[in-house]
Amino acid sequence: MVAPLRVGIAGLGTVGAEVVRLIETQSRALSARCGRGIRVVSVTARSKAKKRGVDLRGITWAKDPLAVAGDPDVDCFVELMGGDGEPALSAIQAALCAGKAVVTANKALLAKHGVSLAALAEAHGGTLNYEAAVGAAIPVVKTLREGLAGTEINRVYGILNGTCNYILTRMEQEALSFEDCLKDAQRLGYAEANPSFDVDGHDTAQKLAILASLAFGTKVAQSAVNVEGISSIAPADLRAAEELGYRVKLLGVAVRTAKGIEQRVHPTMIPKSSSIAQVMGVTNAVTIDGEGIPPITLVGPGAGGAATASAVVADIADVARGVRSLPFGRPVDKLQPVSKAPMERHEGGYYIRLMARDLAGTAATIATRLAEQKISIESIVQRHPDDAVVAASPRGKSAPVPVILITYATHEDAVYRALKAVQRDKVITGRPQVIRIEKN
Amino acid sequence: MVAPLRVGIAGLGTVGAEVVRLIETQSRALSARCGRGIRVVSVTARSKAKKRGVDLRGITWAKDPLAVAGDPDVDCFVELMGGDGEPALSAIQAALCAGKAVVTANKALLAKHGVSLAALAEAHGGTLNYEAAVGAAIPVVKTLREGLAGTEINRVYGILNGTCNYILTRMEQEALSFEDCLKDAQRLGYAEANPSFDVDGHDTAQKLAILASLAFGTKVAQSAVNVEGISSIAPADLRAAEELGYRVKLLGVAVRTAKGIEQRVHPTMIPKSSSIAQVMGVTNAVTIDGEGIPPITLVGPGAGGAATASAVVADIADVARGVRSLPFGRPVDKLQPVSKAPMERHEGGYYIRLMARDLAGTAATIATRLAEQKISIESIVQRHPDDAVVAASPRGKSAPVPVILITYATHEDAVYRALKAVQRDKVITGRPQVIRIEKN
Repeated sequence: MVAPLRVGIAGLGTVGAEVVRLIETQSRALSARCGRGIRVVSVTARSKAKKRGVDLRGITWAKDPLAVAGDPDVDCFVELMGGDGEPALSAIQAALCAGKAVVTANKALLAKHGVSLAALAEAHGGTLNYEAAVGAAIPVVKTLREGLAGTEINRVYGILNGTCNYILTRMEQEALSFEDCLKDAQRLGYAEANPSFDVDGHDTAQKLAILASLAFGTKVAQSAVNVEGISSIAPADLRAAEELGYRVKLLGVAVRTAKGIEQRVHPTMIPKSSSIAQVMGVTNAVTIDGEGIPPITLVGPGAGGAATASAVVADIADVARGVRSLPFGRPVDKLQPVSKAPMERHEGGYYIRLMARDLAGTAATIATRLAEQKISIESIVQRHPDDAVVAASPRGKSAPVPVILITYATHEDAVYRALKAVQRDKVITGRPQVIRIEKN
Repeated sequence: MVAPLRVGIAGLGTVGAEVVRLIETQSRALSARCGRGIRVVSVTARSKAKKRGVDLRGITWAKDPLAVAGDPDVDCFVELMGGDGEPALSAIQAALCAGKAVVTANKALLAKHGVSLAALAEAHGGTLNYEAAVGAAIPVVKTLREGLAGTEINRVYGILNGTCNYILTRMEQEALSFEDCLKDAQRLGYAEANPSFDVDGHDTAQKLAILASLAFGTKVAQSAVNVEGISSIAPADLRAAEELGYRVKLLGVAVRTAKGIEQRVHPTMIPKSSSIAQVMGVTNAVTIDGEGIPPITLVGPGAGGAATASAVVADIADVARGVRSLPFGRPVDKLQPVSKAPMERHEGGYYIRLMARDLAGTAATIATRLAEQKISIESIVQRHPDDAVVAASPRGKSAPVPVILITYATHEDAVYRALKAVQRDKVITGRPQVIRIEKN
């Protein structure tokens, strides 16, 4: 039998401790699957004293991550510290330069330094596995990198942030405001004290940049992703979506267009019949459209210690089996640079919610302004105001009435030109709400 | 650059022709992903003259499958003829004995000869890849074999036959009978002239046996699967399921129990909230319950030329990359023998639909008989007969009234003992309908 794979782990939070535990409890199954044992030989973390509920006897406690990465007794360096810079970056670089295998769950680091790290792995004959970085235990990296190796990908999109999906699900099911749901999510530990990274879409953008690279052979770059968060979504939008046969989800979408690869994160209307629309709460999901085949959707836990550790250990097992994959599925010199696609040139259907001052005149004006921009209307719904009382206001004018439009596919700049004209016409109050529609 | 992988293909139906086309059209991407080219060098099929829409110039036309498998110029033998015996079996054996890699989509052959073929692959240093055999382009084999390598699997279940799901979907949505839907499915080409293999559950059983082996390290054996088809399902069951918060699906279920691994295929009530319950029409889906992590569900096309070819080419790409996997994830000598679990000892909830002769007396009798078997009732629904007319029959008796029960978890033999007693009591007419409930 081949000598066991010797693993060093930097970072012993919930995930790291669970990785140690899994390698121990699943050792027989792992040996059978890999043809060799897997043994944790070195670890480090910020606090040595912290109780972790795993047995670390017989494992070297290294002074810092670099010491684990550089330990000649470590074949496979597992980085579970997180953060898009030090000390994770230097430790991973050191391990890769020594030709070692690296396993990480660090999406932020990959979204920023993925290409240079992949180049290091290639140059020194090492590997860089990161299944846990996107969708935790959902095997989306393996599916894009290996399972669809012979299939041209046209689009990959998904719910990549559990916090946002939890908030949108509760807003929809309980007709609550974004602010109330966010507060609840914070209280329950689903959202951070500073929620911006999640609710403004940045977490999704990092994961999307990785998926886009795997799907389209682009250089992973968070800067190439258009990002909008969910804070502008109102219960009225979720109600209208329901009535029109849609759901609103924060999606990361990477799609091949005639103008290149478009990467975007934004609240999206998706048909209720799609697999993705069924995904509720903190669950994540990714749909992959391959050329000539119906969509493939992977659904599961996108976070959590056990789910993340499951993916980390699978990556380690691939290393133990001797599988060497190119980190982004293709050699770095074949990866194409990609820039941020201008959203004004985005093509698609749109949901538009306006507050009309006066219903009869407004509908005609809106229709005219959209027609001027050659935008066809698929449906138009005039809803009574939320309080269901279309009362006269104190000054004798009637209260604003919501008007909801669904357009056929058009250009985004045409939509905004039409809406600017409508605003100039002074037939609406407030800012129009615009949500992109993604067809399944 | 390494020499290209030389591929020989036996069987050029829709799938085979699409594999040839994909290898040609995706050649640049495949070279980048695999670090070497992939070239089809030899093919064979029943008819050389048939038009296939792919360019076979420059490819040797071999006289039979054995000639392809034995061709010293072929590194990777792709079997796409199907059938659980000859000529596929001998050709695959020949290729494996020569230490070659084999890729197949043949679930029937694997369910029957999987273990002996895996042993040949191991003994001669070859590989046997078969992602396309279960769920076509859905990467369920890779997910179980590699993606969850470090996770103990407790249950794997899914919709593995598109024909049955198509029929059940239409029965549910259009309130049609099984017979009418089957006829329609046959007319539309979704069901064979002899539909037994699909609708009686045998196709699902073959796929389940493969998944069970990957999930639990059992010896793949179709004979260890309990099988029931969907022909007994009535529109009344689907309507009742809907009312009670369930859907009826033909599921293949492999589950770890205290008594061993249970493998079964049968119509199943599953909660409408589960991912699997959302899967409609010919789409397939598999849910995997790993220890300590929320379920992972993979959804997609379970059949079709392009979807199947996608998986075949991914398997070929793994061979080209030099990845050598154990066919069932573990060495053959570690695979455990498995026998058919006696369904009378199955534990779970049950849906029971009875036709009561006289409502008041029957409900009391049923409750008593179930209580005698220590079966607790979760809910009981008394429905009016389908025609909604509870008319007196010609002889002055009232017409039978459907009574629907949902039980808490119990043993199957207890259910049948109770129902026998109810039948002896002569308070019902006809045979009770019993459907197992699977919790998510």
